[in-house]
Formats: sequence, structure tokens, C-alpha cells
Amino acid sequence: MSLKGKDILSAFDFEREDLERLFKLADRLREEINDKGTLDYALGKVMVTAFFEPSTRTKLSFQFAMERLGGKVINFDVSTSSLLKGESDVDTMKIIDGYGPDVIVIRQKIPYFPHKVKDIVKAPIINAGDGPHEHPTQALLDVYTIWRELGEVDGLKVGIMGDLKYGRTPSSLSFMLTRFNNVRIYYIAPEVIQIRDEVLKEIKGKVNYMKVDKPEDVIEELDVLYITRLQKERFANPEEYERLKGVYKIDKKFLMKFKHIPIIMHPLPRVWELDPGVDELPQAKYFEQAKNGLYARAALIKEILGV
Amino acid sequence: MSLKGKDILSAFDFEREDLERLFKLADRLREEINDKGTLDYALGKVMVTAFFEPSTRTKLSFQFAMERLGGKVINFDVSTSSLLKGESDVDTMKIIDGYGPDVIVIRQKIPYFPHKVKDIVKAPIINAGDGPHEHPTQALLDVYTIWRELGEVDGLKVGIMGDLKYGRTPSSLSFMLTRFNNVRIYYIAPEVIQIRDEVLKEIKGKVNYMKVDKPEDVIEELDVLYITRLQKERFANPEEYERLKGVYKIDKKFLMKFKHIPIIMHPLPRVWELDPGVDELPQAKYFEQAKNGLYARAALIKEILGV
Amino acid sequence: MSLKGKDILSAFDFEREDLERLFKLADRLREEINDKGTLDYALGKVMVTAFFEPSTRTKLSFQFAMERLGGKVINFDVSTSSLLKGESDVDTMKIIDGYGPDVIVIRQKIPYFPHKVKDIVKAPIINAGDGPHEHPTQALLDVYTIWRELGEVDGLKVGIMGDLKYGRTPSSLSFMLTRFNNVRIYYIAPEVIQIRDEVLKEIKGKVNYMKVDKPEDVIEELDVLYITRLQKERFANPEEYERLKGVYKIDKKFLMKFKHIPIIMHPLPRVWELDPGVDELPQAKYFEQAKNGLYARAALIKEILGV
Repeated sequence: MSLKGKDILSAFDFEREDLERLFKLADRLREEINDKGTLDYALGKVMVTAFFEPSTRTKLSFQFAMERLGGKVINFDVSTSSLLKGESDVDTMKIIDGYGPDVIVIRQKIPYFPHKVKDIVKAPIINAGDGPHEHPTQALLDVYTIWRELGEVDGLKVGIMGDLKYGRTPSSLSFMLTRFNNVRIYYIAPEVIQIRDEVLKEIKGKVNYMKVDKPEDVIEELDVLYITRLQKERFANPEEYERLKGVYKIDKKFLMKFKHIPIIMHPLPRVWELDPGVDELPQAKYFEQAKNGLYARAALIKEILGV
Repeated sequence: MSLKGKDILSAFDFEREDLERLFKLADRLREEINDKGTLDYALGKVMVTAFFEPSTRTKLSFQFAMERLGGKVINFDVSTSSLLKGESDVDTMKIIDGYGPDVIVIRQKIPYFPHKVKDIVKAPIINAGDGPHEHPTQALLDVYTIWRELGEVDGLKVGIMGDLKYGRTPSSLSFMLTRFNNVRIYYIAPEVIQIRDEVLKEIKGKVNYMKVDKPEDVIEELDVLYITRLQKERFANPEEYERLKGVYKIDKKFLMKFKHIPIIMHPLPRVWELDPGVDELPQAKYFEQAKNGLYARAALIKEILGV
Repeated sequence: MSLKGKDILSAFDFEREDLERLFKLADRLREEINDKGTLDYALGKVMVTAFFEPSTRTKLSFQFAMERLGGKVINFDVSTSSLLKGESDVDTMKIIDGYGPDVIVIRQKIPYFPHKVKDIVKAPIINAGDGPHEHPTQALLDVYTIWRELGEVDGLKVGIMGDLKYGRTPSSLSFMLTRFNNVRIYYIAPEVIQIRDEVLKEIKGKVNYMKVDKPEDVIEELDVLYITRLQKERFANPEEYERLKGVYKIDKKFLMKFKHIPIIMHPLPRVWELDPGVDELPQAKYFEQAKNGLYARAALIKEILGV
């Protein structure tokens, strides 16, 4: 089994056996890259990063992954492109595809944009974030991080906190966790930004979950606390937003109150919700998590290219 | 004969024998790239894309062309450069040239900018659009597309429609068509944006042409209908612009009225003047045309580098 | 001795023997690159250019240097990054470093930013300008240019003119000149933008210097006249700025008044302070200086990578 030539649009596009195979491959590539620097699996292959939205980690880690596999990367950067002239994004994708890239990584504001173009475009495509909808390779590196840090995923208790309603990361992570057994998800957020019913409908019966209002209600039970940003623009009332800062900011002092501290994850970038003081705790895994993105994505690219 | 080390500033820089040789080379490179992915003709060579204006197709296809030939590309992107500090574009070109690139591709707002710097700059330069003036490699891929689709260029009837006054594409295409025998050009546009007299002076006696007001007057005689955008800012009167939309928009329904439909080309990006419904017709060749840009430019780069 | 694995934060990070070794290596790499095009010293190595500010020469010449050494470059371009989301620059650097680049080149607005992150970041870092503070590789190519043009640096008289107070180039150049014997620096500027006392404190006793008000007072004594821009925003009074234009603009007519003309250098970009008419004088060395940046930086990268 392999993902050769497949599109990756959703976290559901990975079966459990795909994930286990990719995680082991990621570990192997890590060793080979540490050993040799740059490999030659993807020699002569070309990846396009078609980013219609700004990005740091995702774009850079895809670039590093492809370069370390020995391939080439061509960036399509919307800020210097003819989109200024009013071209449709679908035309742009057709043109990029016509140049014959071996794989295209797409970041878009529009939900389901990759789904819309997948049959138009011949190259395999990887959804690197379609608005508030999904971000499957973020979930891949998230679950890879949990697997590396805790040795397994089955049976774990995972708290996901922050902007669950509009964040694509919580959805994709939830979907991917359904591939494992006896996982329990705690959605930690005020009602106004709690996880959407569409997401819950997708995972119902495949994973246990419950909604929780505040992190202190559940933290000691958790194996993983996964923090995401709360975005000011989601709140009609600025005072409500300011009040929430008190409740949903995780700092060292807060964590030290508990006997058991779960591993702390964050897709980054962080703003105020995760204090830099936490960085020194052994449970802080978010920079390791970012780094894992390189290896998880390299594994995925290698499989999709079939090299 | 070859173009080794030559500057390409105008469509007139290609003789007929250059064009025929480049078209055959483009076909050969297409096969080799389809076969092997990345070639090694340009190993160790460096191209700079010096783009002082936004671009999608042109920049991407030059990048792909050079990468597929095995070379390297360094982008000089004006939006992140010191031009913000007020440096002259001529100084910028001198500095880029001093770094010793093997070829420089220039896109500029200023007409004749490449002509102005060609003797200052040691590397061969390719004009990738100098304001409303010329875009010779667009003409190269346009005529390559006609040659591939119709088997020859001699004797063809080519309608060029849209913004003929300010568009660089119609000028360069007209110039290149003079290299063939018995071609007839129909310039289809309202008088306010008809082809300029300077352009007609250059082609007089070398190609037959006539001005036409509306596409329906001539479409059944055409072998090729080449559509370009009408830009709103060209019209003093917005109502005039809105009225023209009715006359110069090509859609499937309009085309199906005619017994003979010519091949439809467009340099892209398109806005309203070419309806996406046309894409399904067998005569729609504009995405193929964009794709041909990769091979036509690869052939040109290979010759200029002398590899 | 070598700089393998070292950070380069200041011009003081180079000892005299480092400079002499790097200058000779730069000359050797120049010959090898002219001979072979692209070398293979840095095969499989990856450099990140982390530019938080716009740049032409510095970024391009680092890119060219790395590509010509056979390595790969990944650009981190702040204008298309998540910094828009409010991420701290320190987090950004940690994440970039986690992807395992072999060397990171940093350009920042914030003085001492590279010093702040050097212990957080594992990869060797090169300061490519930290606000008004330092720009050590600019000094490297400046002194390399003097060494090439005049055969030695000991005993020379160097005039540095323009915005000495806020310019990072004058500081780094002054620091590097302390590594040579009997150098005399003339700081040519109106008092309001004269060299800062902090800079003078660093060089006191290590190099002779004096402040001079106008270029004509000293030009005949100089071996080198190093010109930098005067920035309008430094002056509270726009009339004062306009008046200075008369005094601090160097053109051919001005230079031709003197029996002896020193070599003319400028870090570029230039605006009005150095007239293009000077370009034709044999003493004009600023484009050669820009070009030297490629070889000086290639030598530095090669040493830092230890290849």
C-alpha cells in the first residue's frame, strides 16, 4: 500500500495503516537527513507551493522537506502574481498544472478549493489549509508528534483548546484521531467558539469526546493539551475577548499548580495564549512539533511521488 | 545558426529559420522532459528573473523551463528589494549582472528598458514584456502553438481581438507573423483601442492586414481567433466600456452560431472577455498555449546558453 | 584556523588573519567560478536567508554565492509570512532553525537581534544588517575591495562620508579597519549626522581618525572616498537637508577639480549623493565593489560550512 499519485485533501484521506507507515518513514528520513544532509529520492522532481495566503511554517517546512529529499521547489507567490489582474484561482491552478509539476501544495482562503480543482489538475495535490476547513498535513505532524512523544495514540486523552469553531487545525486533528482506538477528546472553549456540529457529526461514534468550558476542569486527566489561538475578530464584544484572555492563557505558573502536566502542543504561531515562560518546561513540545513537520511532510511527499 | 549569447528584445529578433528551429527543438524538449523529468543541459547555469512588475505565467514558465533544463533560477523580486530606497532600475541591472548570471529575463513597466540596458549588461537578456511595447517570447509561444495546432503558419488568417492599442501581445504577434508567407491579420477592435500606426508601419508590405469592427464580421474566415483583454482604464467613459462588453465577449453560445469555429487562443489571464464555457470546445487552445510556453522558452534558453 | 561553525555578528568577529585568508580565498573562488560556473563545495547544504527587511544586493549576492558554491537557498520572506499573524521574530527563528539549515543569514530592523537569538539557534548565523548597528559582511566586501584595488590596507587614508550616525556600514567598516596598521579614517559629515561616540569608543587607540566637515577639505589626501546616502528623514528641517545636497553630492565636475582622485566606493543603492556621471572615471569602483560581495560572501560561507 502506498499513497503514490493520491491527492491529500482531508485528514480522513489517511487510514490508520497509512499513518503508521508514514510515521515510521518520517523517523527513518530523520535519521538519513541527519546523517547525509540532503538525500536523492526526489532528484529531478519539482514541487510547486501555490500559496494564496501567507504562511511561515507550512511553506518553509514543505520547501525544506522537498529540498532535503533532493527535489526542487518552485514558489507561486500570490503577492507578485497576475491575480492582481483579476484572474480566477481555478485558471491559475490549470496553468500551473500545465507546466507539469510532480506535486502541488495548495494554501487557500476558500474552503474546499482543493476539492474543486482536484479533477481539473493532473498533478497530485496536497491541501495545506483551505480557509477554516481543514489542514490535513498539520494533523499528520500533530499526531506524529504525539506518537513520538508518548509511544502510541490509542487510549490517549487529548484536550484541544482555543478557537475550535473557525480553526482548521482542531477539525483535522479530530478527524485523524478517529483512526485510533479509545481516544478521548476534550474540546476546551467558551460556547461562542466551541467546535462546530458539522465536525462532531463526522467523528460521532468513531471517537469519544466532550465539551469542556475551562482548562483547569480537565488538565490533570489529559495526556496532551493542544492549544490554538483565539482570534479577536471572532468576538462581537471586545470586552468579552479581554475577559477570555484571563481564562485561556496558559503560563508556567498556571501549569505548575497541577500534579500532572500533559505534553503541551501548539500549531504556532502563538500570540498571548501560550506564554514563552512555558518553553522551559520539559512538557513543552511545540517547537519539536514544528520540526516534526519537516519529516512528516518529507515522508508524505516521498510516498506521493512514489520514489 | 543559433541564438547563442544573443539578446532577445523584439519579436523581430527571430528570423524564420530561427523560429522553425526553435519550434522543432521545443517539440524535442517536450518529449525529453516527459520522458526523463529533468534534463541536464543547463547544469551549473544560473538564470535571473528580474521582474519589476507582477507576472504569473511568464515568470513561472521561465522558472519551470530553466529548472527542467537542469539549471538554477534566482528571482529578483521588486516587492522585497531596495528599490524601495529609490535606487534606479539601471543600477539594479548593473548589480545583478555583476553577479555573473548566465541569462537575465526582464519584465518592466518602462517601454524599451531592455534596449536601454542591453549594452550595460554583459549577460544575454530576454525581454519578458516592456510595458505596452513588446513581449517577444509570448509571440514565440503563440506562433509555436499555431504551428503545432495547424501544422503550418504560411497562408493562415489570424484575427487578433481586444485591446490592440495598449497590448504588447498583439504587437509582438504581428511582428512575428511577418516572418511567414501570405498570412492575413484581422485586427478586431473598436477604433478607440485599434492597433497603433507605429505597429502598422513596421509590418506594412510584410503581411496583409485589415481592421475589423466586430468579431462576427470575420469569424468564419479565420483559422485563429486570438483574444486579449479590454482594460477598463482605457476608456474615458464607463458606459462605453460596459457597452463593449456585449460586443467583445466570446462565449460558447456565440461561437456555436457559426459553421466554422477557428482555434481560440488567449495569452491569459482572462477576465470577462472569454467565458469559461468555451473551455469545453475542441477549438479552445489557450491552456495548451500556456503550457507551450514552457517548451518554447526552454528551447530559447537552451539556444541562448549554447548548451 | 577557520571560521567553521562560527556566528558572524560583528566586523570585530574577524581577526586580521581571518581577513587575509578570506580575501585570498575570495580571489581563488572568483577564478574557479569564472572557470567552471558552479562549484560543488556546498553540495547538499542549505542556507536560509531570513530577511525581515527589504534588500537587493545583500540577499542576491548571498543567494548567488551559495548557488555558485553548489548549495541550495531557501528564502524566508517576511512579506508573505505568518508574521502578519503577530508571531514574535524569536519564535520564527526557532522554527527556521528547527528545520535544520546549515547556515542562516539574518537581516533585521532591530539592533542586536542576531546577538539575541544566537544561543537559541543551533545553525551558524550571519548578521546581514541589524538596523543602524552593524553589517559585517558589507565591511568584508568593502575591505576586500580596498585590498584588491590598492594591494594593501595598512597605512591607507580612508574618507567615509554621508550618514555616519545612523548608517551601519560606516560603523562596521571602521571596526574592520582597526585590524590593519596605521590606517587613518576621516569622517566627513555635518555634525548632526557625524559618527556616534559609541563607535569612536570602540576604535579609539586602534586606528587614527578625525572628523571633517566637507569633502573638499580632505579629498586630495585620501586613498579611498567611501560615500553613503544621507537620508532625508534624519533632518528635522527640510531646508537644512536641501542645503546639504549642495555640499555632499559628488559628481564628475567636483572630482575633476582635484589633482589626485581617490578610488570612489559606495555600498549602494545610491540616490543623489553620487552622480551617475562619475561611473565613467577609472576611480569609480562601486559596481566592482558590489560584485566583490559575491566572492567575499562565498569565501565566508565556505569557511563557516567547513567545506
